[in-house]
Amino acid sequence: MSEKVIIIGGSAAGPKTAAKVRRLSEDADITIIEKGKFLSMASCGYPYFVGGVFDNRNMLLCTPTGVLRDPTFYMNAKAIKAETETEVVAINRAEKTVSCKRTNGEEFVLSYDKLMISTGSIPRMPFKEGLELDGVTTLQSISDAEYLRKIRDEKKIRKAVIIGGGLIGIETAEALRLAGIEITIVEMADQVLPYLDWELAAHVEKHLKTKGVNVFTGMKVEKLIGENGVITAVKLGNGTEIPCELAVVAIGVLPNRELAEKAGLEIGAAGGIKVNSFLQTSDPDIYAAGDCIEINHIITQKQTYSPMGDLANLQGRIAAENMINGPEVKFSGTIQTAICRIFEYSAGATGCNEKAARAAGYDVETVIITGPDKPGFMNGLLLISKMVVDRKTGRLIGFQCTGPGDVSKQVAQAALAIKGGLTINDLRDLDLPYAPPFSLAVDNFIACAHAMENKLLGRMKGISAREVRKMKCDNTSKPFILDVRGPDEFEAMRLGIGEVLIPLGALRKRINELPADKNHEIITFCKISLRGYEAALILVSAGYTNVKVLEGGIMAWPFDREK
Amino acid sequence: MSEKVIIIGGSAAGPKTAAKVRRLSEDADITIIEKGKFLSMASCGYPYFVGGVFDNRNMLLCTPTGVLRDPTFYMNAKAIKAETETEVVAINRAEKTVSCKRTNGEEFVLSYDKLMISTGSIPRMPFKEGLELDGVTTLQSISDAEYLRKIRDEKKIRKAVIIGGGLIGIETAEALRLAGIEITIVEMADQVLPYLDWELAAHVEKHLKTKGVNVFTGMKVEKLIGENGVITAVKLGNGTEIPCELAVVAIGVLPNRELAEKAGLEIGAAGGIKVNSFLQTSDPDIYAAGDCIEINHIITQKQTYSPMGDLANLQGRIAAENMINGPEVKFSGTIQTAICRIFEYSAGATGCNEKAARAAGYDVETVIITGPDKPGFMNGLLLISKMVVDRKTGRLIGFQCTGPGDVSKQVAQAALAIKGGLTINDLRDLDLPYAPPFSLAVDNFIACAHAMENKLLGRMKGISAREVRKMKCDNTSKPFILDVRGPDEFEAMRLGIGEVLIPLGALRKRINELPADKNHEIITFCKISLRGYEAALILVSAGYTNVKVLEGGIMAWPFDREK
Repeated sequence: MSEKVIIIGGSAAGPKTAAKVRRLSEDADITIIEKGKFLSMASCGYPYFVGGVFDNRNMLLCTPTGVLRDPTFYMNAKAIKAETETEVVAINRAEKTVSCKRTNGEEFVLSYDKLMISTGSIPRMPFKEGLELDGVTTLQSISDAEYLRKIRDEKKIRKAVIIGGGLIGIETAEALRLAGIEITIVEMADQVLPYLDWELAAHVEKHLKTKGVNVFTGMKVEKLIGENGVITAVKLGNGTEIPCELAVVAIGVLPNRELAEKAGLEIGAAGGIKVNSFLQTSDPDIYAAGDCIEINHIITQKQTYSPMGDLANLQGRIAAENMINGPEVKFSGTIQTAICRIFEYSAGATGCNEKAARAAGYDVETVIITGPDKPGFMNGLLLISKMVVDRKTGRLIGFQCTGPGDVSKQVAQAALAIKGGLTINDLRDLDLPYAPPFSLAVDNFIACAHAMENKLLGRMKGISAREVRKMKCDNTSKPFILDVRGPDEFEAMRLGIGEVLIPLGALRKRINELPADKNHEIITFCKISLRGYEAALILVSAGYTNVKVLEGGIMAWPFDREK
Repeated sequence: MSEKVIIIGGSAAGPKTAAKVRRLSEDADITIIEKGKFLSMASCGYPYFVGGVFDNRNMLLCTPTGVLRDPTFYMNAKAIKAETETEVVAINRAEKTVSCKRTNGEEFVLSYDKLMISTGSIPRMPFKEGLELDGVTTLQSISDAEYLRKIRDEKKIRKAVIIGGGLIGIETAEALRLAGIEITIVEMADQVLPYLDWELAAHVEKHLKTKGVNVFTGMKVEKLIGENGVITAVKLGNGTEIPCELAVVAIGVLPNRELAEKAGLEIGAAGGIKVNSFLQTSDPDIYAAGDCIEINHIITQKQTYSPMGDLANLQGRIAAENMINGPEVKFSGTIQTAICRIFEYSAGATGCNEKAARAAGYDVETVIITGPDKPGFMNGLLLISKMVVDRKTGRLIGFQCTGPGDVSKQVAQAALAIKGGLTINDLRDLDLPYAPPFSLAVDNFIACAHAMENKLLGRMKGISAREVRKMKCDNTSKPFILDVRGPDEFEAMRLGIGEVLIPLGALRKRINELPADKNHEIITFCKISLRGYEAALILVSAGYTNVKVLEGGIMAWPFDREK
């Protein structure tokens, strides 16, 4: 007897479920029902279509060999029915049917043995006034992408405001900025990219600014202002009006759970459809996957909303397995891995950042390091990394990285390390793929573990750029700030916060130039704070009791520097 | 009382040990003794200096900020004595001294509390005749690198033979080929890059050939032939003479263990100096690290010779820790991770390849997949990957990858997965950093785990390109070979081994065109064998009992194809 499988939603999790069900059962009767016109949209690619990385919109909708993934494709290649422009208006759990309505008004009912809800997400909209104006959009659909791409190509619009400095906001800012549009990002939090801690986000913000993008953090948008139905400005919470001809609302998404709620399915603590580890909803014949569900956070074991395209695909595959042969395959959850390109920078994170880890009750140690991804002679590019470790177990629970270097590999390594439950002892002698075109002999990730080990063992006391800056601004303490680089380096670039230069090579002889009081607070640094660390060890050995290393050195300093 | 630490060898492990000892003890009396002129040579960078990636040789000898790592640097920055052009001629364990001899003939004796032997490796030389000729070199030292760089710059030499198709051989071939020199690689084994299995090495060989490099595998070199003391040809075992003006011998290295042997220290089964997990030799006050030792293989638990620059550094750090505070920190061993750039390709591996795993007694399952590293619309580049899993535990024990795509990240992910002891169940829903500029929604590594899962569960039976080719050459069986791509794809490129084209979308209707005998062997494929797999499932469902998928599809076919 052939299993009837109905799948609501044709973007990522849905088609993946359908394809996998077919692979598991040549007999299953499979139907995808999609509200919109398109199927299997590569929605993470929208910003790159908008930005002109490619011109053929259909690349977002095609198989790798260029076949459009339309209902005909699904029927021919996979014997899957796909009903587009058709909405499921109700799930009737008692009868195990779904009530459907086509755009043309036609209504029909289909019965199911197993049902998948993969209805995705809806954009968050924090305010209401002005959202109806022309020139206001999100970047959530193919038609949004086409709208913004047209703006790019027409080159008429000169000023745009991106509301929201998260992943989509930043990607959209990049795409439109590359088209020559003047961009302002307005973000309510005190930083962009909330998956990073402030110290790393500050570098992203700095890079955005060097690319001509204005960034306002800690700033709420009050409303959108228009004339004759067309946007003219974004009004901020402090009264400022930013003139613009385009506003993109990108403050994140919410699970599209309405249909599930109406059907009486349980909603979880994080606001998504609640599923068990087999991805079953509170009705065991109804599965859910993708951006409409909440999932387990592998580290904190808390329910988490993590709407990511890669997870949607992986969930679809597991749900299909459970529908046909299960339920027995568990989805293990998320560690909230994320990455984003920002012009020449990338910024990624996995696990808990420091904020999240502390909020979850962990006693953490953190360290920031900087360094090139490859040797200087191979034109290595900068990486700025932050590691978060649970002091109790020594386990890696979070890692973030940004800079122009190969961030993606660093974050991928960390994601696997977290998955394997690795501790700092495990990371300190990793056998990684080393050759000069790819990494340093001691890869950045291992170097980060070494610095972390030094901190955990009490050999290094660190202080962040933000803390040093605050200290200087507040004028609360008067640390002796010691730059141990060479005179040439000092000449070329310096912090300009009253630091004293004593090159490391001269420090042992010139130690008498330091404060006589051995309890005076001393902060050491160099370019990346390796020499800074060596200097600190010399000072500690000389009896200084309060020596801290500026973590990551000058390269991790996100504030203005003297040149 | 200050600890006297003497370090023999100033390349990688030695200076790392010295620097770490200093960080652990400001009091220690540290001396590095180096036979050659230079210290802390980035020897893995030699091929890139030869190839002209950078012009200043001193970049191989400098700190990242451009300070030459000479004895003055070590003394000033680290308070470490460094004696260059000085050889340790004997270790006198009873007195705890070393007898030293300078190049100028001067002799002296130093006493130690702790000794580090980091004497590195010596080149393997498989034959003797002709090695003395002008135009014969290795690429093992700065002077070798300078010699080859001069050849590159002078543009006089037109033909060179590289003896050995391993990592250094390939890197040297690339460097000299980029200088316009006609290159022939001669390799005794039946493939290049022994850390790969044949199927992947064949792709590297193919790429070398497209770059104009001649490759002879399965071929021994008998001797070098010269006239007037200058090389004129390399004579192969089969009698062929390859004319050349330059021969680079790069058939690998051996541990430089002579000094240790003379001192009565134990030598291990793999030919290197034997050390325990604290990196102590058979004399607990004498440590050894780097290319002169053998180490534990984490997977097979066998003693292994793994002369890699990254491991040398990590070992140096651990040995220093044990000298000063231990012994208590263990070096965990190697998984023999390696990577190499070959023109536009990279090729890397970690863990055991299939050969090694089977030799070590594992019952393994393997799978080969192909696919782009990023979406097509982001100009994704090909990756060809092979995974090796221990059937008993389901654990990943090996992974290899080659192609123009981001190989380094794939191998790094696998290295971490192996370190974490992850199984296929752990890998199938990894939360990796996904965004279109960095990877596919289902990353290649996860896709490989999915294919492996399908094989382990018996859902997919695979066959390698090599087996199919052998089948056709031997004419032992007459499988029905089914290409399920589209007609356009078939038109553009095909295997040309008598395959029949039935596009996947038509297969269900045209199944009657297949052999009537349901036990007939059928081999399915497409571009990357995802559609090939779906086709196989359709056929199995239709009652065919002997259906195999050509793993990796056309993209994994390393032999000639019809265009």
